[in-house]
Amino acid sequence: KHTPTNSVLIAQQTCKTTFSSSRDVEVFKLVLEVLGTESGNSESPANMELEDASKEGSEDGSSDVSEQKPSLPSEFERLYKVVEDNPEDFNGWVYLLQYVEQENHLLASRKAFDAFFLRYPYCYGYWKKYADIEKKHGCIQMADEVYRRGLQAIPLSVDLWLHYIAFLRENQDTSDGEAENRIRAAYEHAVLAAGTDFRSDRLWEAYINWETEQEKLANVTAVYDRILAIPTQLYSQHFQRFKDHVQNNNPKHFLSEEEFVQLRLELAAANKPTGEGEEETPSEELPPGTEDLPDPAKRVTEIENMRHKVIEARQEIFNHNEHEVSKRWAFEEGIKRPYFHVKALEKTQLSNWREYLDFELENGTPERVVVLFERCLIACALYEEFWIKYAKYLESYSTEGVRHVYKKACTIHLPKKPTIHLLWAAFEEQQGNIEDARGILKGLEEAVPGLAMVRLRRVSLERRHGNLDEAEALLRDAMKNGKNATESSFYSVKLARQLLKVHRSIGKARKVLLEAIEKDETNPKLYLNLLELEYSGDVQQNETEILACFDRALSSPMPLDSRVTFSQRKVEFLEDFGSDINALVMAYDQHQALLKEQESTKRKAENG
Amino acid sequence: KHTPTNSVLIAQQTCKTTFSSSRDVEVFKLVLEVLGTESGNSESPANMELEDASKEGSEDGSSDVSEQKPSLPSEFERLYKVVEDNPEDFNGWVYLLQYVEQENHLLASRKAFDAFFLRYPYCYGYWKKYADIEKKHGCIQMADEVYRRGLQAIPLSVDLWLHYIAFLRENQDTSDGEAENRIRAAYEHAVLAAGTDFRSDRLWEAYINWETEQEKLANVTAVYDRILAIPTQLYSQHFQRFKDHVQNNNPKHFLSEEEFVQLRLELAAANKPTGEGEEETPSEELPPGTEDLPDPAKRVTEIENMRHKVIEARQEIFNHNEHEVSKRWAFEEGIKRPYFHVKALEKTQLSNWREYLDFELENGTPERVVVLFERCLIACALYEEFWIKYAKYLESYSTEGVRHVYKKACTIHLPKKPTIHLLWAAFEEQQGNIEDARGILKGLEEAVPGLAMVRLRRVSLERRHGNLDEAEALLRDAMKNGKNATESSFYSVKLARQLLKVHRSIGKARKVLLEAIEKDETNPKLYLNLLELEYSGDVQQNETEILACFDRALSSPMPLDSRVTFSQRKVEFLEDFGSDINALVMAYDQHQALLKEQESTKRKAENG
Repeated sequence: KHTPTNSVLIAQQTCKTTFSSSRDVEVFKLVLEVLGTESGNSESPANMELEDASKEGSEDGSSDVSEQKPSLPSEFERLYKVVEDNPEDFNGWVYLLQYVEQENHLLASRKAFDAFFLRYPYCYGYWKKYADIEKKHGCIQMADEVYRRGLQAIPLSVDLWLHYIAFLRENQDTSDGEAENRIRAAYEHAVLAAGTDFRSDRLWEAYINWETEQEKLANVTAVYDRILAIPTQLYSQHFQRFKDHVQNNNPKHFLSEEEFVQLRLELAAANKPTGEGEEETPSEELPPGTEDLPDPAKRVTEIENMRHKVIEARQEIFNHNEHEVSKRWAFEEGIKRPYFHVKALEKTQLSNWREYLDFELENGTPERVVVLFERCLIACALYEEFWIKYAKYLESYSTEGVRHVYKKACTIHLPKKPTIHLLWAAFEEQQGNIEDARGILKGLEEAVPGLAMVRLRRVSLERRHGNLDEAEALLRDAMKNGKNATESSFYSVKLARQLLKVHRSIGKARKVLLEAIEKDETNPKLYLNLLELEYSGDVQQNETEILACFDRALSSPMPLDSRVTFSQRKVEFLEDFGSDINALVMAYDQHQALLKEQESTKRKAENG
Repeated sequence: KHTPTNSVLIAQQTCKTTFSSSRDVEVFKLVLEVLGTESGNSESPANMELEDASKEGSEDGSSDVSEQKPSLPSEFERLYKVVEDNPEDFNGWVYLLQYVEQENHLLASRKAFDAFFLRYPYCYGYWKKYADIEKKHGCIQMADEVYRRGLQAIPLSVDLWLHYIAFLRENQDTSDGEAENRIRAAYEHAVLAAGTDFRSDRLWEAYINWETEQEKLANVTAVYDRILAIPTQLYSQHFQRFKDHVQNNNPKHFLSEEEFVQLRLELAAANKPTGEGEEETPSEELPPGTEDLPDPAKRVTEIENMRHKVIEARQEIFNHNEHEVSKRWAFEEGIKRPYFHVKALEKTQLSNWREYLDFELENGTPERVVVLFERCLIACALYEEFWIKYAKYLESYSTEGVRHVYKKACTIHLPKKPTIHLLWAAFEEQQGNIEDARGILKGLEEAVPGLAMVRLRRVSLERRHGNLDEAEALLRDAMKNGKNATESSFYSVKLARQLLKVHRSIGKARKVLLEAIEKDETNPKLYLNLLELEYSGDVQQNETEILACFDRALSSPMPLDSRVTFSQRKVEFLEDFGSDINALVMAYDQHQALLKEQESTKRKAENG
């Protein structure tokens, strides 16, 4: 359970860069969980701390949307078809969502938003719109559910938290006397999730204002104690307000009883005269608890001294925090678009993120690093480099965390980016989850057919796990289905090399290459690989085969430049390993003739 | 013995493109011999037909020039030193020869000219100057010898032949009554050697004029019969003059007796009335030999008829020759510098020669081809392509001829051109003359040290003849004496490949490469070859070695771009053959890091 105490711990740790105890590790894991990066073993994490809203039953159709299909307007169907056919058409989504909002059609809205968020969960504004629609139709429970899903998807969104808490305050059941605690728990969850963000000031201020409204001044002080240690944009304003809070209120109100008593004792002890030779005066009896001192003058002095002590203690934290802020200021200033958008980010924005992350990786605590990654991956959700960087970073902390990052990147934001899929598959293979790795690669190939590196990874996965026949079959399939001769030849070369080097069958390898040459007789790589194959044995014994291979290349319809290269290599082969000076001289003559042909072709080309 | 009859045969053959009989082959060989291209088995060919000039003894110092050294002027020594140090400095030679001519110093002249002609035998004007100096000093026998040497060196020089014959006529011994025959023999030799040249008209005219002066009109006709069938520049003028010769002289003078009698009989037979029913008149008795017909009218008629017949017979030959001239006219017009010069020829000149040769190779007789090559190789003596083309052409006719061409090209004109030396060495190796081949390559290496292709040919020569140790020693020597690390590494790679593939010792090969890497640790080729070596075995069993090789390359101080290539290949290797997904992922990460480094290096370079 995440209590405020834990949060304070987190806040106090923001300036440490390494874990100093196993408790720190626990705290870090907690942050990961709250951010949804580590899914833990139970239900979805964003729900963990939020009190269950009162069950309203499922009167308003939480059943399968597909059953409702017949009743949806045709204009909706038209707009929906657009994004169904091309989910990457963001404008198409915008038109669809505008339409359902205007029409105020609940089922259509649900279908549209649910589909939209599968792909664009970072658009926090649309979560609010969705919740509003549910509310407008009186489905408070569904609205609450939408907010929870939204906050689970984008827990760093201060706006969404504020909207949600406003919704909660407006719609809560006050009959059980627990309303205040529920709101406080919501604020706690919010600052735990989003409060480390440099731009989380509005959330903290809202929390402080709310506690002030509840006249829980000691709570206000406790919240200040946390925000004063977190580098945020308005760090200085918080301190100013904190000092006002202290000056304008009585310590016995803004301190907890425990703190107050502790401070009173400290002050009394410090007030004792310590002069030598002087007679010891018996210590004055202090009143119990937070009762005022009987002497009015001493009372005023105590209050002033306490205020002074309280501020003095925070001044040091503030100074340190100001230093931390100054180190991050330029990076934060550089973030021009902190929110998600499908449009490409400027290069300077991307490099600012890169540099900021590198800075934080070097200087920040794991919590700060994770939070910065999460912020970055809202703005840069469509850039696989940052997902990869995040996954790599998490490797030393949490296998589940890594998996979660890969899964989120690949299934939600980057369903067609090969590199991160390959890394995910490799990660699962490293974890021994061969079937998962297989599925990831196969899935990507279905989404984006024809990517060589994906097919080759599938081949190598099978090879590594001893399924040589399957590896061969995958290559043969790729050869057969290559979208052109060059692609088929590429796989032929790969297969031939595998047959030669892994299956150790030179005959099968040769056959593959010869068949490939028949179909793609102008491809230099095929001849080159055939040559290497023949060359791989005893070059003196294989001289005839090697020369035949050269001659096959030279008499092929390959481009002249390629033939010149083969001819040059033939001369070199005969010089280095040939047995016959006549063959060498003849090859040299043929080479000269080819060079002459090349020369005259070039001249012709130059003369137009 | 080359008689006019043979020459007529040659002239008649100029329009045939192939040999039609073994006699033709003989004639062709004769032409080669006369041109000095085939040296035959006896003494130097240019001397063959020339009558020995009367021996004058060796009174004027044909003894070794080196013994005379002390008496040579110091200015001579200075000028001589210049060309001795740099024989390619043609101007240096010009100054030297100007000096000895001005000073009229016989011994200095001999030393200078003899040295000059070793390298520049095609400068025909200097042969004349040399002969003149000898003559001026009264050394007629030496002058004659100089002319013979000159004509042997450049038998196609019409000027030199004309100077020589003028010299002969001026200086000959007339006491034995053989003077006329000696001059005629000289003319015969001259037209045999140079008379097929398109620009040989002056020589033919001189011959005709001389025979006319000797009042040997039948000889004149015989000479015309030859020149009328040879395509030359002034072909038309010859025919005109021939007709004048016929019109202005009596057939019994300009025809041989045999021809005259034959013609008289033919005319008489044609004159017989052939009318039917008419009474046969008994045939008039013809006078014997070349005696005139008794009837003055018939005499005049016979002379006119004979003239008509003689010209009519040549008209057809003339027409055919005119056609041959027309086919060559553009090529001949294109020859702007037919003589030798050290300055480079224009590109258009070179291509004109190329095209002319190709034309003649396709259309001309072997004699015309050979003569054109010889002409070409005066103008283009410094271009090895034409020597090579000539040698290749002669391959199907005469081994001796090929050898002569290579030798002349390599020892006189192109002592430093590697290609033609390599071809010469290959030719001798083909002929089984291993020691000669060895000598040619070694000689070239001494003249032009450090040429890789020459050293590699020496290596392969030894390898082909089973001297593997010598081949290895040659490569090790080249490694040791490489003028820089790159060159040494080049030979290390060659040696490693030889050790692996020919000696079949992977251990020795690996050692060579590892030692080379120690000395040249930024050379990608060394790592690549080491990789191929490790790769040549069982890639699965050798995985550790192969990966170690990659890592050696990646941690080397090689340029970043090269390391990126190796890193890419490492990823591919692990994908295709690696056993461990972890290694693959790690290699991929390292590769990404390198790519990033490369990217930022590029950016830095772009920003200056």
